[in-house]
Amino acid sequence: MHILWNDQIVKREEVKIDIEDRGYQYGDGLYEVVRVYNGRLYMVEEHLTRLWSGAEKIRMHLPFTKEELTANLKKLVKLEGINEGKLYFQITRGIDSPRNHALPNPDKVKGVLTANISSYERPLKKMEEGITVAVVPDTRWLHCDIKSLSLMGNILSLDEARRQGFDDAVLVRDGKVTEASAANFWVVKDGTVYTHPDGNLVLPGITKMNIIELAKELNIPVKEEAVCEEDLFTADECFVSGSLTEIVPVVKINEHIVGTGKPGKITKQLLNAYIKGVDAVCGTSKH
Amino acid sequence: MHILWNDQIVKREEVKIDIEDRGYQYGDGLYEVVRVYNGRLYMVEEHLTRLWSGAEKIRMHLPFTKEELTANLKKLVKLEGINEGKLYFQITRGIDSPRNHALPNPDKVKGVLTANISSYERPLKKMEEGITVAVVPDTRWLHCDIKSLSLMGNILSLDEARRQGFDDAVLVRDGKVTEASAANFWVVKDGTVYTHPDGNLVLPGITKMNIIELAKELNIPVKEEAVCEEDLFTADECFVSGSLTEIVPVVKINEHIVGTGKPGKITKQLLNAYIKGVDAVCGTSKH
Repeated sequence: MHILWNDQIVKREEVKIDIEDRGYQYGDGLYEVVRVYNGRLYMVEEHLTRLWSGAEKIRMHLPFTKEELTANLKKLVKLEGINEGKLYFQITRGIDSPRNHALPNPDKVKGVLTANISSYERPLKKMEEGITVAVVPDTRWLHCDIKSLSLMGNILSLDEARRQGFDDAVLVRDGKVTEASAANFWVVKDGTVYTHPDGNLVLPGITKMNIIELAKELNIPVKEEAVCEEDLFTADECFVSGSLTEIVPVVKINEHIVGTGKPGKITKQLLNAYIKGVDAVCGTSKH
Repeated sequence: MHILWNDQIVKREEVKIDIEDRGYQYGDGLYEVVRVYNGRLYMVEEHLTRLWSGAEKIRMHLPFTKEELTANLKKLVKLEGINEGKLYFQITRGIDSPRNHALPNPDKVKGVLTANISSYERPLKKMEEGITVAVVPDTRWLHCDIKSLSLMGNILSLDEARRQGFDDAVLVRDGKVTEASAANFWVVKDGTVYTHPDGNLVLPGITKMNIIELAKELNIPVKEEAVCEEDLFTADECFVSGSLTEIVPVVKINEHIVGTGKPGKITKQLLNAYIKGVDAVCGTSKH
């Protein structure tokens, strides 16, 4: 496996992360996951726009341009020869010694980028059968719009659901559904699709943005409104979305069966449109 | 500089952190900072009790006993020959490849410990002159009792205060004062000392625990009750506490001067008792 390490592509064994990398001591950094279809990076510009926006929010200087990063990511994908994959990359604020909570002078530290690509295939089984979710309190911080490396809240929420025997968590804060543990959450009721509006409580999903566009084209009404926890139990359909997940139906919430217990009609319509959109951009692949 | 790396003491340059260490990708780990006085680790048992309690909360297996860790930490302090210092150590959940949000099977990963000691002296100037704080919304997660490596919320709060020209932040959630960006916060009013009770919104400070005991001995009434934001502006005295900070007076909050603008009487009484307590355990040192 090769790693893009800052602006160099090296073998995994050669990468050495410093103990005083702020990513290691503070979770002080950002990440993105880009889906690769047919050897091509899907919606990479949108992912980079979000990365740059996150960097501005946490006042982190990114030591490269979007064009430089894109070129290096493409070089890595080509070298690894992976056609269907997930491309993970993260950038931390850099090495700051001695450790100090205060943000270092950006002239004195340099962000540390690491990226890798691994094989990944569309989760067809989950798309056909759906997944189950448990309602879990949303105890994360109040800047969930930032795709930060400080992910303890997310991983503990997922673990809470897993230990109860569910595939994922649907998070609820102050009675309102926010998102899944690492994916946006959607509810369909009487033909309208609902999802939490962007803001500080959810990640502005690239796939979310994509789905809103697709729904418009399909004349499916979308409302970016938070639904209440109890609305989960009267929903006709539910699904989660994300760059890797694409669109996966949710068929059970706690002990309640969603709709018929099978993936719903609107969910399937959106998924088909999503896949067509991918194929139109990246060319048909076996996924 | 030497590093305690798991159970080995090595030169800093020899430590190599893996890119898929969950500490690096998820902030998935815990840390502690222990003050060293006169070559001795102060209240190390209490710090380790908190570490073990945190590990239980995040369901992380610690691959050593308290006795083993204590012995190795002492070995490091001795080797580095630092008498007055801060001993930092963190443990992550270990290396999990490929990256996966779900908690790995504890039999398949092994926690990664790193520890270092550096010189540190009592912050006498701050103790004499006091510090200033800005009121900043507490946007951290709802498990602030866990001393987690996912610290983005803390560092951004501090940065918010620093950019406004203050030394630290006093965090307010739902109208109530929780703590400073990385220290417990205290308010003195009419002879009674107030601090936020333990629970999920503040760190159960070792120094906090210590101060509550000292106040009892000095017959100073303590109430573990959250005070309201507006109470900050009518306080007679305020201070922050932590293992490195010990007790540091707060003399200005936003544009309001606290009390006389000088360290208050009760704050000084508690600080003197704190230092006496340290000296009694570690022997008198120049600090």
